[in-house]
Amino acid sequence: MSPRRTVSPDRTVSLSPHHDGSAAYVPEQEPALGQTVPVFVRVPAGADVHTVHVRSTPDGEPRFAEAVVDRRTGSDVWWRADVEARNPVSNYRFMLTDARGDYRWLTAAGLADHDVPDHGDFKLVTHAPPPAWARDAVIYQIFPDRFARSAAADGRTAPDWAVPCDWDTPVIGRGPQTPRQFYGGDLDGIAERLDHLDRLGVNTVYLTPIFPARSNHRYDAASFDTVDPLLGGDAAFARLADAVHARGWRLLGDITSNHTGDAHHWFTAAVSDVTAPERELYYFDLPGSDYESWNGVKSLPKLNWGSAELRRRFATAEDSLLRRWLRPPYSLDGWRVDVANMTGRRGADAYTHEVARLLREVVGETRADGLVLAEHGHDHTGDLDRDGWHGTMNYVGFTDPVWSWLRHGSGLRDDSGLRPGAEPLPNFLGTPGGVRRRDAHAVRATLDTYRSLISWRSYVHSWQLLGSHDSARIRTVVGDAARQEVAAGLLATMPGTPVIFAGDELGLTGANGEGSRTPMPWHRPGSWDAGTLAAYRRLIALRRGEPALRHGGLRWVHVDADTLVFLREAPTGGVLVLARRAAGVPVRVAGLPAGENVYGGAPALRPDADGTVTLPADGPTFQLWRV
Amino acid sequence: MSPRRTVSPDRTVSLSPHHDGSAAYVPEQEPALGQTVPVFVRVPAGADVHTVHVRSTPDGEPRFAEAVVDRRTGSDVWWRADVEARNPVSNYRFMLTDARGDYRWLTAAGLADHDVPDHGDFKLVTHAPPPAWARDAVIYQIFPDRFARSAAADGRTAPDWAVPCDWDTPVIGRGPQTPRQFYGGDLDGIAERLDHLDRLGVNTVYLTPIFPARSNHRYDAASFDTVDPLLGGDAAFARLADAVHARGWRLLGDITSNHTGDAHHWFTAAVSDVTAPERELYYFDLPGSDYESWNGVKSLPKLNWGSAELRRRFATAEDSLLRRWLRPPYSLDGWRVDVANMTGRRGADAYTHEVARLLREVVGETRADGLVLAEHGHDHTGDLDRDGWHGTMNYVGFTDPVWSWLRHGSGLRDDSGLRPGAEPLPNFLGTPGGVRRRDAHAVRATLDTYRSLISWRSYVHSWQLLGSHDSARIRTVVGDAARQEVAAGLLATMPGTPVIFAGDELGLTGANGEGSRTPMPWHRPGSWDAGTLAAYRRLIALRRGEPALRHGGLRWVHVDADTLVFLREAPTGGVLVLARRAAGVPVRVAGLPAGENVYGGAPALRPDADGTVTLPADGPTFQLWRV
Repeated sequence: MSPRRTVSPDRTVSLSPHHDGSAAYVPEQEPALGQTVPVFVRVPAGADVHTVHVRSTPDGEPRFAEAVVDRRTGSDVWWRADVEARNPVSNYRFMLTDARGDYRWLTAAGLADHDVPDHGDFKLVTHAPPPAWARDAVIYQIFPDRFARSAAADGRTAPDWAVPCDWDTPVIGRGPQTPRQFYGGDLDGIAERLDHLDRLGVNTVYLTPIFPARSNHRYDAASFDTVDPLLGGDAAFARLADAVHARGWRLLGDITSNHTGDAHHWFTAAVSDVTAPERELYYFDLPGSDYESWNGVKSLPKLNWGSAELRRRFATAEDSLLRRWLRPPYSLDGWRVDVANMTGRRGADAYTHEVARLLREVVGETRADGLVLAEHGHDHTGDLDRDGWHGTMNYVGFTDPVWSWLRHGSGLRDDSGLRPGAEPLPNFLGTPGGVRRRDAHAVRATLDTYRSLISWRSYVHSWQLLGSHDSARIRTVVGDAARQEVAAGLLATMPGTPVIFAGDELGLTGANGEGSRTPMPWHRPGSWDAGTLAAYRRLIALRRGEPALRHGGLRWVHVDADTLVFLREAPTGGVLVLARRAAGVPVRVAGLPAGENVYGGAPALRPDADGTVTLPADGPTFQLWRV
Repeated sequence: MSPRRTVSPDRTVSLSPHHDGSAAYVPEQEPALGQTVPVFVRVPAGADVHTVHVRSTPDGEPRFAEAVVDRRTGSDVWWRADVEARNPVSNYRFMLTDARGDYRWLTAAGLADHDVPDHGDFKLVTHAPPPAWARDAVIYQIFPDRFARSAAADGRTAPDWAVPCDWDTPVIGRGPQTPRQFYGGDLDGIAERLDHLDRLGVNTVYLTPIFPARSNHRYDAASFDTVDPLLGGDAAFARLADAVHARGWRLLGDITSNHTGDAHHWFTAAVSDVTAPERELYYFDLPGSDYESWNGVKSLPKLNWGSAELRRRFATAEDSLLRRWLRPPYSLDGWRVDVANMTGRRGADAYTHEVARLLREVVGETRADGLVLAEHGHDHTGDLDRDGWHGTMNYVGFTDPVWSWLRHGSGLRDDSGLRPGAEPLPNFLGTPGGVRRRDAHAVRATLDTYRSLISWRSYVHSWQLLGSHDSARIRTVVGDAARQEVAAGLLATMPGTPVIFAGDELGLTGANGEGSRTPMPWHRPGSWDAGTLAAYRRLIALRRGEPALRHGGLRWVHVDADTLVFLREAPTGGVLVLARRAAGVPVRVAGLPAGENVYGGAPALRPDADGTVTLPADGPTFQLWRV
């Protein structure tokens, strides 16, 4: 991948030919199998594009068709070509030939001077689309034990496995007490705090597990049949669901499809009787009739998706666990699927894609607007666009590159983790060593690569996170409020569903996933980072108010080591985004219209006599203009 | 992907850390499912590698393990790590951390400074391996109508569809006569010319189809039950098979799994009776009960692999067509599968991988050492490593980049196709416009990318071609004998099974696939390019004599626009290869041992006082040293 740089001798940046999966370029967003749809390429003046072909591979054979000029807007030429959605996933790319007869490929990974594999092609997908509400969602993630306690919590007795903690007890990030620290947050506590979410501006609540378990995280479910009484039980859950839905919001649950807890009644039945019907739900084929478990953790026995009985209990039965919580009085709007990356994978067993299809199908049967979102902490691209998961947790294609660009310290490990007194850098989901420092070219390359491997639809429906209950908090990674604002700006303005881990908006810190499960300091409002909270509120409001930020395309304008500049554009208008991690030189861009600043406080964009605009050079900064 | 260049200020090139799937790095070449095997990374002195981790993703979850120093050879450090072949395809990569705590990834695509997707990881594969003979094969491809006529051919009457041609009649590359020109080559004619193959040095014969048909190419089979009488029938085929096997060689057939001819008895039965059992073998579901065909060519009705009856007749039945020709008296050693890229793909039907597995399984049952090789003219990587095709025709990962590097003319289209009097450049398998000119960086990037997406095993068992009956001939692409020698040098020395299209070794020309099906000029030996023939003979002899060229790894030493330098290394020794398309500046390389020139005539390699060797600067040239 070696796109020609379009920087003129006076360092003025020009725009490149562009296509993506958004509606300006692919007006038919939900093609039917066999339907032929137009696709458009936008070519700025001066890009030296003489002819355009589209290449598709219907039924596995390359086919070329010549594009035609459809229209001109300003100095841009829009080329149109037709592509048949011949297969459930139909890939296509453009061949841009210059006046000399040379060509470049334009794929979802960008412009390439040499041949590149088909996996980075643009993709038309004919599978049933995700629910319409999901593309406007801004999600707030809540870890129930740590969010808020209702008065009823005081009346409950801590269970035998728990180490009861006051709300101000420091969270222990690693050690035997980590899963046992019990703060007693509950569902009515959440319901009482929805005004905070409202002020923040989110419209979807995602709860990590709420089933009975023997840990504070509850990923070791003892049952899927009831809500943990320590959280208030089924009734409290129904009350919370009502309260969320009454505000017009959505509510998402968290289901473990890879394993249960060893206290689960399925597992105890399977252990106590080798002829029990539950025996086949697990893998009891290790030496000594031992059982397979999640990463060897014996309290988390792994589910065997080769079992028809598991498929029935989990998904297909009329009263399956997947279905019942999607129905009144709870009416969950969908599931986040825990450890989706391992679900159905074990040795030669490879049921993952079948399971994803099955769960998606059953959720869709139960409620047509249900969402199915997969956890994935590494390369997720092979598991999407298979009529299963609607999207994934895009740690690798967003969190990791943004972290590596904005992390604190200017050098490598020696000016952070190794220097006496410096705060060690967190790692990325277990990758050895601290978060590495990378420049914005690496950020763009990583974003583009992962985005290119899945359909636009799967990309924009994947979750965009700065962190979660499984990672360090963004504030700890970047070190200060200024860079957290840049990170939050990217969260709010890049394609993908923004997810805010409760407390990030207050500037809370945490050096690893467990350590980030910080109780919300409701009783100490003076400890809140008011500037960060205000920035989150304004950025989320912009996201929710501006269609281009939710449904627009993504067009890169400029990247240098410390700077990312891009356009989000929709038929209703566009937004120019400037993100800088440090001060630098002004960037001059040709071909941009005038624009009013709507975030960050920089001057309006006014093209000079040459038709170029100059972007500010200070930093760290995050700026938005409506163009 | 932005590997750091290791070129010192005096332009001396250093070697990079390296791993590939060859035996020096992966001693266990056929791991069993669940087996833990050691893998090795070789780190040259000065590469600033402080620690090495291996990252694998067993059952879909990343896992890191620290590598240890295993040994030192010369100035190289060999690190060892263990990886479990946990899944049928288990990927792994290395994390090379420097003294400052920064790291690079080493994947099959090379060194990367930022995160890259898992698809380019190294791969352990536990599927049954290809037959052992295949990795030593040098294949000669014969198009029967055009290779040689026996005396018996004179006694045969041309069929009704044919336009009989004298052996010297010019081949018409495009037009209604193209499939009808009938030269009358036959199987006894081939058998009579095996001495030519022996002198050339090949050890495997691949025949394009030999079944009765209504075209000279016979990809429109009218039957799979008998050999075309125009070729001499079953008896002639048995004689040819005996003659090939008597020399200790292998013989490969060509089977159309995507379609038959419309004269095929299956199809005529299906057309004449809608209740015939043959009806389900095809797709009669187009408007008006019309049938699906290959790219809309109605003489090539498409087979429906959803049909159990097709699977039975084609593959699983005891007397299936796939099996019978693998048995005596023919004993074919395997099949090249035509249009494998489309086989089983049609709209929502996606049987391709099932069919590949089925055909591989049935071939393996019938003869344990049978080969199954897939035609694929574009990105084939998604169809390999699925326990199906042993390899593919690697047009995109070898032919296209080599063509684009060595094509005639120095500029773009304007100094070839568009300049009056210049010979137009051929296109690449239908890609619009002539072959583009690319430098060696693009060649390396393309080779590395496609190689990285499949296992080393699938890569080395894929066919390496400079052309075929479906493409222009290499001589026409490169324009002269000097550059054809460079191309043939790469063919003989890169990993992958070399395939020579009959006539290339004589310098024959052809501007497209059909036009390249040139009758062999046996009767005009004065027209043969003796220099090219001698080069092919010497290069093939080196390939067959030198284990490193057949079983060694591939380690890049240096690439500049006009130059490719690489090492092929095996435990038994190594070969340094220098390919230049034009003269340039001498390349100085640190860390290479002394070596004797074994091809090309350059001086021996002798390290100077600094320990560097200097490679010659003239070109075009192809040079080999044993090191």
